[in-house]
Amino acid sequence: MRLAMVSIGGMPRLARVDAAGQRFWPLATLAPELPEDMTALIDALSRGAQLPEPSGDGDRLEEAMLLAPLPRPPRNIFCVGKNYYAHAREFAGSGYDSSSTGAADAIPQAPIIFSKPFTAISGPWDDIPLWPGLDEGVDYEAELAVVIGRGGRNIARADAMAHVFGYTVVNDVTARDLQGTHKQWLLGKGIDGFCPMGPWIVTADELDPASMRVSCTVNGEKRQDASTADLIFDVPTLIETISRSMALLPGDVIATGTPEGVGIGFKPPRFLRDGDVVECAIEGIGRIRNTLRRQPAG
Amino acid sequence: MRLAMVSIGGMPRLARVDAAGQRFWPLATLAPELPEDMTALIDALSRGAQLPEPSGDGDRLEEAMLLAPLPRPPRNIFCVGKNYYAHAREFAGSGYDSSSTGAADAIPQAPIIFSKPFTAISGPWDDIPLWPGLDEGVDYEAELAVVIGRGGRNIARADAMAHVFGYTVVNDVTARDLQGTHKQWLLGKGIDGFCPMGPWIVTADELDPASMRVSCTVNGEKRQDASTADLIFDVPTLIETISRSMALLPGDVIATGTPEGVGIGFKPPRFLRDGDVVECAIEGIGRIRNTLRRQPAG
Repeated sequence: MRLAMVSIGGMPRLARVDAAGQRFWPLATLAPELPEDMTALIDALSRGAQLPEPSGDGDRLEEAMLLAPLPRPPRNIFCVGKNYYAHAREFAGSGYDSSSTGAADAIPQAPIIFSKPFTAISGPWDDIPLWPGLDEGVDYEAELAVVIGRGGRNIARADAMAHVFGYTVVNDVTARDLQGTHKQWLLGKGIDGFCPMGPWIVTADELDPASMRVSCTVNGEKRQDASTADLIFDVPTLIETISRSMALLPGDVIATGTPEGVGIGFKPPRFLRDGDVVECAIEGIGRIRNTLRRQPAG
Repeated sequence: MRLAMVSIGGMPRLARVDAAGQRFWPLATLAPELPEDMTALIDALSRGAQLPEPSGDGDRLEEAMLLAPLPRPPRNIFCVGKNYYAHAREFAGSGYDSSSTGAADAIPQAPIIFSKPFTAISGPWDDIPLWPGLDEGVDYEAELAVVIGRGGRNIARADAMAHVFGYTVVNDVTARDLQGTHKQWLLGKGIDGFCPMGPWIVTADELDPASMRVSCTVNGEKRQDASTADLIFDVPTLIETISRSMALLPGDVIATGTPEGVGIGFKPPRFLRDGDVVECAIEGIGRIRNTLRRQPAG
C-alpha cells in the first residue's frame, strides 16, 4: 500500500495511491473515520485499524500534487551517518568528517545518530533552497528512510521489523562547511528545506530493506547507486540501537544513511549549484526530484 | 513573570507563580481566552497578548506540584556542547570527547549544537531513570535554558534578545559511554527522562543572561558553580548561529551548555548512582532536584 499527502485545491490531503503511482483515492472518501494526519493515521493503522481497498477509478495523480508524506514526525528525524562502507571511506578522506581522524577509524564501530528537525522537511518536487551564506558547500545524500509504526523501548533486533510501518525516500541535504565547522551535525544538516521526502510511504509488507537499490543523479548524471545490502548497520540494528536510548514512537523516521558518490567524494568536491536538479530514487518506492534554487538575501 | 505547569487534581495546568514561588494562579482563571498549552501561550504572548496581573491570594504552591514548564517544544531541544572554557578543557581531557583530539583543539571555534527530543524532558522533581545497560556512565550538566518567543530566521546578534521569551533550568543528563561510542551525541543525550526542566519559566524582562550563576550539587556536595559570563558563545551569538541554519520557532529551547565540574572532570570519574540526588540551580530562576532511580529490566 502507498500512502501519500496530496495537494487538492491547495489543501494537503491524505490519500492512497495505486501501485503504478497514477491514481489516488482521498482517505476522506475511503475511510472518513480515520485521522487526516499521517502520524495519527500510522498510529491508528499500527493499532489494528483497517484501510479499505479502494473501489472505482480514483483520481488522476500528477507528480506535482505530491507533498512530503510525513511533514511532522513526532520528533526530529533520526539520521545515520557513515552507514555504507564505501561512503564512510570517502567521507573520512574528504576533510569534512569531524567524527574520525582519518582512514584508520573511518568505519564506525557503532551507529552515528544525529537529527534533522521537521522544519527541514520539504516535498518530493520542492526546490532545495540555497540560502545566502550557506550556499558554498551544499551536497546531496540519497537515503532509504524507515517509518516506525508500533512504538517501543528496548526493541530486540529479532523483533525490530514488526515495528516498521513503511519506507520512503529522503535526500539528506547537507551544508558540508557547517557540518565540519560545528562538529555536531545539526546545524549543517537541519537547514530549512534540506530534507526533501517522498514521493509517498510504501508499507513494510511490500519491501525488503535488506536489499533495496538506492540511487541519485545530478542533472541526469549518475552519482550514487548502491544496495542497502551494503549498510554497515542494517535496519533492525538501527531500531535496536535507537530504542535502547529512547522509546520509538509511531511516525518516527530513521534515515538510514547514504551510499558512496556524494559531492565531497570527488576531488575537487562537486557541490550543488543554483539550478542543479537532484533526483533520488529507491527501487520499489519511487523517486523525488528537487531543483537547487538560490534564495534572496534577508 | 513566572509561568509554570502545575499538576492540579492530576491534570497539568498552566499557571502564573508569584516571585517568591509560594502562590499560583491558574491561567484558566486569569485569562481563560489564552491557550492552555505553554508553546501556544508563548506564541500568543510574543504576538502581543497580555496576561493580567493576578489578584487575590492565589493558591498555595507545593514544589511537588510542579511539572516541566515546556513539555513539548516544537522541535528537539537545541543543546550546546563545550560552551564554558574550563568545562571544554575538562571534557577534552576526559577521554569521552569525540569532538576534539585533545588539548590543542579543546576550545570550540564555533558553537557545537546537538539535540535532545521532547521525550527526554521530565519534571523538576522527577526521578532520573537509570536504565539497565545505560547506567554505567551517567553524568549531570546544570544549564541555563533559553526559551524563544518570537521566531525568526537570520536573527542578527544585536536583535537576538528581542526573540527571547524567558529562561528555565535544565539538567542535560548524559550517558558518557554512549556519547563517546556513537560520536554524534543524540543517543547519549536523548535518553528518556534525561532532561529534567523547571521549576518554571522566568520571562526575559527579569533577567540578564550575561551574568547568571549556574550551580549544581550532588548529595549536597557542590560540583558546579560558575557564571554565564564565562560562556564561550553567549546567548545572542547562539541565537544568531542557530537561526542562520533554521528559522527559530516560538517555544524552541536552547540549553546553553554546562560549566566545569561534571563527573568526568574528576579522576577517576564520579558518575551518578542509584539514589544520588542532583540539584541544579540558577540565581533568579530557581532550582530543580532529581533523584537517580534504577529502573527494572525489560
